[in-house]
Amino acid sequence: MSKIGFIGLGIMGKPMARNLVKAGYELVVYDVNAAPMAELVETGKAEAAASPAEVAAKCDITLIMVPNSPHVKAAVLGANGAIEGAAPGKLVVDMSSIDPMVSREVGKALEAKGIFFMDAPVSGGEPKAIDGTLSFMVGGRQEDFDRAEPILKCMGASVVRCGDIGAGNVTKLANQIVVALNIAAVSEAMVLATKAGVDPELVYKAIRGGLAGSTVMDAKVPLALARKFNPGFRINLHIKDLANAISVGHEVGVPLPLTAQIMETMQALRVDGMGDLDHGAIIRHYEKLAQVEVKKQG
Amino acid sequence: MSKIGFIGLGIMGKPMARNLVKAGYELVVYDVNAAPMAELVETGKAEAAASPAEVAAKCDITLIMVPNSPHVKAAVLGANGAIEGAAPGKLVVDMSSIDPMVSREVGKALEAKGIFFMDAPVSGGEPKAIDGTLSFMVGGRQEDFDRAEPILKCMGASVVRCGDIGAGNVTKLANQIVVALNIAAVSEAMVLATKAGVDPELVYKAIRGGLAGSTVMDAKVPLALARKFNPGFRINLHIKDLANAISVGHEVGVPLPLTAQIMETMQALRVDGMGDLDHGAIIRHYEKLAQVEVKKQG
Repeated sequence: MSKIGFIGLGIMGKPMARNLVKAGYELVVYDVNAAPMAELVETGKAEAAASPAEVAAKCDITLIMVPNSPHVKAAVLGANGAIEGAAPGKLVVDMSSIDPMVSREVGKALEAKGIFFMDAPVSGGEPKAIDGTLSFMVGGRQEDFDRAEPILKCMGASVVRCGDIGAGNVTKLANQIVVALNIAAVSEAMVLATKAGVDPELVYKAIRGGLAGSTVMDAKVPLALARKFNPGFRINLHIKDLANAISVGHEVGVPLPLTAQIMETMQALRVDGMGDLDHGAIIRHYEKLAQVEVKKQG
Repeated sequence: MSKIGFIGLGIMGKPMARNLVKAGYELVVYDVNAAPMAELVETGKAEAAASPAEVAAKCDITLIMVPNSPHVKAAVLGANGAIEGAAPGKLVVDMSSIDPMVSREVGKALEAKGIFFMDAPVSGGEPKAIDGTLSFMVGGRQEDFDRAEPILKCMGASVVRCGDIGAGNVTKLANQIVVALNIAAVSEAMVLATKAGVDPELVYKAIRGGLAGSTVMDAKVPLALARKFNPGFRINLHIKDLANAISVGHEVGVPLPLTAQIMETMQALRVDGMGDLDHGAIIRHYEKLAQVEVKKQG
């Protein structure tokens, strides 16, 4: 069995790589920092590479998990990038959450050399990366999906092909738009109810079973009532995703007025020092506007 | 058993009154139009009154179901209003969806004459009014709630007390804010995905089970994909509710920037002749901006 390449051993990548080791795979790893590489090497199941090119040269399938579009371009197309090491027929799977237009650009560059590519961003964050229960949204050819699926399943509870290259990241962006705006929706509603003198917990209980109900409402309202805003999923990261959504909107011609507004609201929270809080802290923006706190009464 | 008073026999009120008749109650009814009163009288279980005052004079409990705040004020506090007929100790229950500040004002005026009052708006719309499966959100004293609950249960599947007078309508407004913005959220997300070349149905299937999932997503996305926008709940009515939410926000000091934006988006749809479509047609605003349709492929 060929070793699996793994580029990017950060907060997400490291536990994901560990789950591959647990599943019995041997890895060739690369990160810009030496420390997480050393940690993986200590398992006895991973060797450290000097560059993404070396990783791709040694492995049939190379996985990438880095922060954003520029890092993916650098790791694949940059100097000593995966494209320099990979032979025709090999597969690169980028699990980073990035601009889908960049996924398509990277896919085209690799295709020109006969190398296959898929974008496979995840949702679920660090806890699910550790548990191996991420949700993968995958874009790419069905044959490549079939090839990578058993590997991705070692890191995720759900692995869904959404279309061709870029479709994974488009789906992820759609997800992030809905989540951000659903948090904003319950935030305005709960702040209004609270300052109008109604117990927000009773409002939550009265409306959660009807058309207003959502996974966001059940996940975030109880945390807001308990004043718990530790991440979870950081506002800073959510801003990055929405900026990518806006960028795609500009590229393909889709105005996103509400997405832009909630992105800038999160920007205001970041400027106010709350960028590392959970995105549930979006409610604090509306609380500040109204000078009231949505909290458990009595 | 005292007869039940019922003021307002419109699209919602008439089927609700019929459900009371079915449950064995006798009614005294009033409406500004003679036709729906005649229909109720034909059941043999209702008598028509000449004014709200006459209804309230003849019944211990009077229910109201009219379009908006001014109609409630007219029916209760206006010339020949319920306040003129009701004796101390009687109970008026307003089931209309109105500005909660008006609920409190009406409650205060009645209280000054020893008459009890509750606001008890519903969600569910005409189909659930007919089926008797509405959800009641009630504001008022616990004693009054206990008195009215068996009657409301003949018309609703759920009857929840949310606090004192006004709390019912505050809860309803919170509900309507969340519903409107959750529809807008899936709209921007699905329009982006579609124009970015990804099958919106696959996006829906990929994200509905995660944090982005909502009752709105499951209720409205399949209808949008099938291009079905018949009501349901009309945009015109949703605008009324959001205008009441904004009004409460002004009164108690809660800025509602996203609510204001989606209200004006619905306004644009109304101006464009779509006010009588289901609020799921909000997606058509974003489709028009992007010049694309979110529909089932193949």
